Amino acid sequence: MTLTMTSVTSELAEKGERARLAARRLASTSARVRDAALHAIADALVARQDEIVAVNLADLDAGRQAGLAESMLDRLLLTPKRLAALADDVRHVAALPDPLGQTELKTLPNGLQVGKKRVPLGVIGVIYESRPNVTIDIAALCIKSGNVALLRGGKEAQHTNRILARVVEDAASAAGLPDGSVQLIRSTDRALVREMLEAREYIDLIIPRGGADLHRFAIENAKVPVVTGGIGVVHIYIDQAAKLDDALAIAFNAKVQRPSVCNAVDTFIVHRAVADEFLPALADQLGAANVELRVDSAAQAILGNRGNVRAAEPGDFGTEFLALRAAVKVVDSLDEALDHIYTYGSGHSEAILTEDYSAAMRFLDEVDAAAVLVNASTRFNDGGQFGLGAEVAISTTKLHARGPMGLQELTTYKWIVLGQGQVRA
Amino acid sequence: MTLTMTSVTSELAEKGERARLAARRLASTSARVRDAALHAIADALVARQDEIVAVNLADLDAGRQAGLAESMLDRLLLTPKRLAALADDVRHVAALPDPLGQTELKTLPNGLQVGKKRVPLGVIGVIYESRPNVTIDIAALCIKSGNVALLRGGKEAQHTNRILARVVEDAASAAGLPDGSVQLIRSTDRALVREMLEAREYIDLIIPRGGADLHRFAIENAKVPVVTGGIGVVHIYIDQAAKLDDALAIAFNAKVQRPSVCNAVDTFIVHRAVADEFLPALADQLGAANVELRVDSAAQAILGNRGNVRAAEPGDFGTEFLALRAAVKVVDSLDEALDHIYTYGSGHSEAILTEDYSAAMRFLDEVDAAAVLVNASTRFNDGGQFGLGAEVAISTTKLHARGPMGLQELTTYKWIVLGQGQVRA
Repeated sequence: MTLTMTSVTSELAEKGERARLAARRLASTSARVRDAALHAIADALVARQDEIVAVNLADLDAGRQAGLAESMLDRLLLTPKRLAALADDVRHVAALPDPLGQTELKTLPNGLQVGKKRVPLGVIGVIYESRPNVTIDIAALCIKSGNVALLRGGKEAQHTNRILARVVEDAASAAGLPDGSVQLIRSTDRALVREMLEAREYIDLIIPRGGADLHRFAIENAKVPVVTGGIGVVHIYIDQAAKLDDALAIAFNAKVQRPSVCNAVDTFIVHRAVADEFLPALADQLGAANVELRVDSAAQAILGNRGNVRAAEPGDFGTEFLALRAAVKVVDSLDEALDHIYTYGSGHSEAILTEDYSAAMRFLDEVDAAAVLVNASTRFNDGGQFGLGAEVAISTTKLHARGPMGLQELTTYKWIVLGQGQVRA
Repeated sequence: MTLTMTSVTSELAEKGERARLAARRLASTSARVRDAALHAIADALVARQDEIVAVNLADLDAGRQAGLAESMLDRLLLTPKRLAALADDVRHVAALPDPLGQTELKTLPNGLQVGKKRVPLGVIGVIYESRPNVTIDIAALCIKSGNVALLRGGKEAQHTNRILARVVEDAASAAGLPDGSVQLIRSTDRALVREMLEAREYIDLIIPRGGADLHRFAIENAKVPVVTGGIGVVHIYIDQAAKLDDALAIAFNAKVQRPSVCNAVDTFIVHRAVADEFLPALADQLGAANVELRVDSAAQAILGNRGNVRAAEPGDFGTEFLALRAAVKVVDSLDEALDHIYTYGSGHSEAILTEDYSAAMRFLDEVDAAAVLVNASTRFNDGGQFGLGAEVAISTTKLHARGPMGLQELTTYKWIVLGQGQVRA
């Protein structure tokens, strides 16, 4: 293996070396052993809940003293009930089909049997923020897919992450997984994030799980391949041929059902021909759910003085709000809508609402995004909804994995050639 | 689209902007238009052969004056015969199945139809060295797969590349492809390579085509995703249960048939139980083909004073020779062979020669490389041999594409969702 040397802290170097060794052995474990380890982890999360909850209290106390918002404290919190739910999630992962080992061989004219075999990527580095349940989620998905997990959680959850990682490591080792299959980086020094992003000798893929800043930092600084997502500047285009009742229901669902996530809508683009009828109904219905609208001048001329409506500022288009807020733009044509999405979209989730067949086909064809939807809520762009069984992330990169990533996207393949002495002519 | 701004020369900025615009339109062209463009290019290469050959002579003269080796000058040379062969290659690409558009939809319980549709990556940047035929090869593969090609060739071939790019652009535009679908960067300033590697706003994938130095430079400096390959430190392990006649034929083929390529063997690992019998035969046969062997002390004790045998230096193991030279190591076990490959392999092509079923299975399972072969020459790790129809590169990266890359590996997918008003519960 040709190694690219970079400067790494001794902690990353030591854990990275262990991870490489573990990856080599983990790749050859059977699905039975990996699934048994997952069940052992699930059981341990319940059996050791008192220990975990006690440590979690320390993080919560520190967070409270540091003035963390209640919403942040809630994300940190682990209760016996939440641990039981986490354990169930792990058992659910265990029950999924093994993503490894499938091989489809074809026989070439010279008798060689050739095909691709699904194998683990190797070592997956995950950089995440305050929610300690990510420690368990990612460990489970990595074990299932035969990958070593090198975890770097946020400072706020550091004690909780440590006990969770220890519970996972203890259970996994006892179940026969190689030592070092799941490792938590203890240092919460920010410099370590950059070192992970550069550590090609130890890490095969980095998945950042967190806000837009983390994703941007990863893109800018990574030498290790990164699958990023998370930044969803999401549009719904209400065409002149939309069924307006359906459009209203979809618009409401896409904004209000869970506003804090990346597939929630950010901008409504409304065709002028239906704006007079649609916009007041939209503004009233969203207003009743406390959604603020930032509207262009054409929309404002229609909506007038409503309490939840104000003029859009230039930055509102192209912003991921992650809140009860949306921008509104009126357009004269499908082309203008497509241009707006091309300019402001982040390639995440984009929808058209229309009964016009040709408009729907053009939108599907011309919009370049991880998911393009016709007459459905953008909230469906999700691994669970798409039937992937488990979701690692929603990728907005184009290579390797796009949109919801399941277990298969944590694997790669190697070519297998079975010969009987063939040489090349 | 959220753009990451980097400092780029005006040439890259101008061509990158044109490339982005072209990519948006090219993605919607039909296979018929793309194939017609390929035929127009093939015809133009023949019709304009005098013009091309005349310009090529200027590069050859400059190369001769600059003291280029004859082998380099031969790689630069374009003759009417070579142009006709290039044109045939382009027609062959046109005849391949369209890699775009396939969609497999499934219907979810809520009635949503969901699936992945194959779409182009967008803009592909290719950085290559002296062979001007790469200009045509890559342009054809990119057009076929609906991608814009942004080409940066070597200085030695600059005039030839310019006329070839003009021939391609003229023919492609006349056949109805968007302007800017194929563009050659004119500047041969080395700084431009680094700028391309950083130009995430313009380029979706970089493919370096050249020597190990170029690949390393790309890995170290890229912010754009890069698929690298080319560096093949290739091993053949001759097990104690190998058929030695077959092993001799495979070893000879893998070293001698084409020593300058990445899937040629570099190190023979020989089990001690067969070393006494196998090594002298190997040394004699390879010696007759002028292959020099760099051998460890155990092999030297067996081979004694042969003209083509000398003691290995530490650097010989792990070296890609690309020449009539190979290293030889004697091992006591399959485990020792696996450890050697783990330490020195580059993840390209690795073979075991054995009649021992369990040894073959362990090797297939435990060696982590783009292609792992049993009882066959490593020279088979090749897109043409594997039946891909066309080969873009042989990737040693694990993400997106591994081993021979065909047209499909120049594509990505987007999720398509067809609804009838569904919202998420």
